[in-house]
Amino acid sequence: MLSKAKVKYIQTLGQKKFRDQEKLFIAEGPKLVKELLETNAVQVTQVYALKEWIIENGKLPGKTETIEITEADLERISQLTTPNKVIAIVRQFDTDNRLLTKGKITLALDTIQDPGNFGSIIRTADWFGVEQIVCSNDCADLYNPKVVQSTMGSIARVKVLYVDLKEWLTAQKDIRIYATVLEGQDITTMKKLHEGIIIIGNESKGISEEILKLANVKITIPKKGKAESLNAAVAVGVVLGWLV
Amino acid sequence: MLSKAKVKYIQTLGQKKFRDQEKLFIAEGPKLVKELLETNAVQVTQVYALKEWIIENGKLPGKTETIEITEADLERISQLTTPNKVIAIVRQFDTDNRLLTKGKITLALDTIQDPGNFGSIIRTADWFGVEQIVCSNDCADLYNPKVVQSTMGSIARVKVLYVDLKEWLTAQKDIRIYATVLEGQDITTMKKLHEGIIIIGNESKGISEEILKLANVKITIPKKGKAESLNAAVAVGVVLGWLV
Repeated sequence: MLSKAKVKYIQTLGQKKFRDQEKLFIAEGPKLVKELLETNAVQVTQVYALKEWIIENGKLPGKTETIEITEADLERISQLTTPNKVIAIVRQFDTDNRLLTKGKITLALDTIQDPGNFGSIIRTADWFGVEQIVCSNDCADLYNPKVVQSTMGSIARVKVLYVDLKEWLTAQKDIRIYATVLEGQDITTMKKLHEGIIIIGNESKGISEEILKLANVKITIPKKGKAESLNAAVAVGVVLGWLV
Repeated sequence: MLSKAKVKYIQTLGQKKFRDQEKLFIAEGPKLVKELLETNAVQVTQVYALKEWIIENGKLPGKTETIEITEADLERISQLTTPNKVIAIVRQFDTDNRLLTKGKITLALDTIQDPGNFGSIIRTADWFGVEQIVCSNDCADLYNPKVVQSTMGSIARVKVLYVDLKEWLTAQKDIRIYATVLEGQDITTMKKLHEGIIIIGNESKGISEEILKLANVKITIPKKGKAESLNAAVAVGVVLGWLV
């Protein structure tokens, strides 16, 4: 059985303050943990797993420590409503605070606060080959367990940078900035993009005025029915589906 | 202050059994409640609201009863983490159990179990003008508070029918059935659809084998990056963005 201190320690990684202090985060469930273990760039420091998971997965490579736990232990350390066999403690990624935007598609997120949406956006970017995302500092935390879970492993492949979005966009030269809004150019009439920054706005307020001013082109997903807006992650999917 | 019995009654509407017994459901927040109040087809029986909401919205039309409540009352009856001014009790919709598929686009959901995803799918359908959805009986409950919230009002406009999906699809004649899978025809090479049934599969398992057999055409969102799959609601967005 895991010691009380150990359980407490893992539980505290649910909080941003402690995660950042320890430079770690938590990932749960066989699918996600497997994907992280298989990604070279990711350092999984410890895996807490039920016996059945350990038997299935054998000895783990490199420096990853495996700790066998009971169902009861798992219940205590899991952040999920339905704990699922295994929890990994993973090192946070190095960020060098710079992104090259030239020749690439970059997503810019303005105040995406719902962890599930944020994770889904990262996963969607990964599907469409978009490798980098800049976020305003008030977006959800990348290492929030709900974000991590909803990226479904894409967290290991998409570079995410937190910035003062206004400042960052202002500093971008010689590159087009697209803003997804309710009344702009119909994306279905546009050519594929090979480079550019695409801004996605907050779930209920859209893109803030000071950010919107920095865009060169306003773009829109044509509406055929009556919904007032689309979910932010769905909007990212439709836009990338058309434009990349 | 609301009576204990009243609070208890509203709280029980969080549970499917009681919702179905009373033929009611709950909707929360100014935006959603406003949209439901403005939709003719929807019957809002009662509105529990803070004084500020009542002043802003004035007398409600028709048979809707308005009950002024305190912040403390709201906390007690709300299903949200952050209660938001107003809660409406709404009559469940009549369903005549039949849908005409001829000349229309119909979504068919196979075991979509996450309430947020399900709600987002309804909202996305509404954006793209898809007016009807059939669901396998093991999909999330339409009146689950999380589903209701994430439809953002589209619940009032999209017809949702629960069926034995295998039986229902088998009974469809003279209409094409499309299944979204990982290896099928690239949707970006297809013409717009004016009629057809589009099947979307479970978040982690995809479309079940017995359902997949009933499809005429397998379709795919081309992948350019490395994510294993897309979120179900995002997939609906991309597919409808291309095909309708």
